[in-house]
Amino acid sequence: MEGIKVIEIKKSVFEDNEKDAEKLRKELKTKGIYLLNLMSSPGSGKTTTLIRTLNLIKDKVRVAVMEADIDSDVDAVKIQEATGIPTIQLHTGGMCHLDAEMTRQGLDHVDAGQLDLVILENVGNLVCPAEFDTGSCRNAMILSVPEGDDKPLKYPLMFSVCDMILVNKTDVLPYFDFDLEKCTRYVHMRNPHARVLPICAKTGEGVDVFAQWLLQEVCAWKQ
Amino acid sequence: MEGIKVIEIKKSVFEDNEKDAEKLRKELKTKGIYLLNLMSSPGSGKTTTLIRTLNLIKDKVRVAVMEADIDSDVDAVKIQEATGIPTIQLHTGGMCHLDAEMTRQGLDHVDAGQLDLVILENVGNLVCPAEFDTGSCRNAMILSVPEGDDKPLKYPLMFSVCDMILVNKTDVLPYFDFDLEKCTRYVHMRNPHARVLPICAKTGEGVDVFAQWLLQEVCAWKQ
Repeated sequence: MEGIKVIEIKKSVFEDNEKDAEKLRKELKTKGIYLLNLMSSPGSGKTTTLIRTLNLIKDKVRVAVMEADIDSDVDAVKIQEATGIPTIQLHTGGMCHLDAEMTRQGLDHVDAGQLDLVILENVGNLVCPAEFDTGSCRNAMILSVPEGDDKPLKYPLMFSVCDMILVNKTDVLPYFDFDLEKCTRYVHMRNPHARVLPICAKTGEGVDVFAQWLLQEVCAWKQ
Repeated sequence: MEGIKVIEIKKSVFEDNEKDAEKLRKELKTKGIYLLNLMSSPGSGKTTTLIRTLNLIKDKVRVAVMEADIDSDVDAVKIQEATGIPTIQLHTGGMCHLDAEMTRQGLDHVDAGQLDLVILENVGNLVCPAEFDTGSCRNAMILSVPEGDDKPLKYPLMFSVCDMILVNKTDVLPYFDFDLEKCTRYVHMRNPHARVLPICAKTGEGVDVFAQWLLQEVCAWKQ
């Protein structure tokens, strides 16, 4: 197993993130690379969900992962060991989010020219990552059952910028006051087009539906 | 029941946060007001823990709560209704944390001169709030069992600036791979003096110990 490459990324000095993001997205379209930006709170199960998903799709698309973290590389090692998928670690140097320029610095270190799909696991945070367009083709986020069904009320921007909301840890629904119907209603107040998909990364339930959605997205992007 | 006062707070233009924080802390000392800064991820149970704690201490100290949120006032209403404690809502205008000047703006709106204790519920976020000294006498944080025992490795700064780590939702320990001993070891890697206290805000278990600690802190601060 190849070691994890750790990239110390820096914030852009130009600070025109929207323009940078649009430019990056156009380049990705030209090159036929689909970039998914995956966000969530700390501990919602991003890494476990990713591992399940990657093992379902890795024979169908050429994929790599960029793991963004403040300074550890725990998740990157775990993903590469469990899937064999090339994974790089982006260290944000304390920054609470990634912008488009930081994302581009990461893409320069994966062999993007040989890939169909790059998944960016953003910093665990429901606030700042929602404010910065990374240049991704699509934003997805994971809300886990223990966090509560009211999160779309409290972190409105996050839910309005995501098109796919994975509701994870459905295996513990009996132990928490989490109303999936109410949660879906709150999500749709923020983004009427968002899809709410219950999954359980631990058992794998629902992850095949997410994997299928992702493969269709990649296919459509490459047209 | 009095309605919730909502304060739209603004970031300081001077940006010398450390100086502002020290100044605020000295003023609080002079006035005999203890300010606790409570932080956590979204959905870790800050509000439920606060309600339990307030109901245990409200006859012993004069206390008020400042609830910081991006833009909802769900938690402030819940706390005031469940405890009768004066609660104000701080809207951060999208900001992911509070600094000392923002905290001061909040304190100007609670009748701090008549209080022994003010509890600040910071924005749900393990990254940014750790970077900004609010001027509080002490930082505490809640890590909930479903988030995982590895969080001190992934969000080092948060765990190094907190002296009291409440490990919440211990009622669901049987359903998650959470090792309390391992977690405590990771916390002490970041801050050897931090106290790790398991609680269950839902059942009340351990919250009395936290309440006792808080009362002792207030008492010592006023000497």
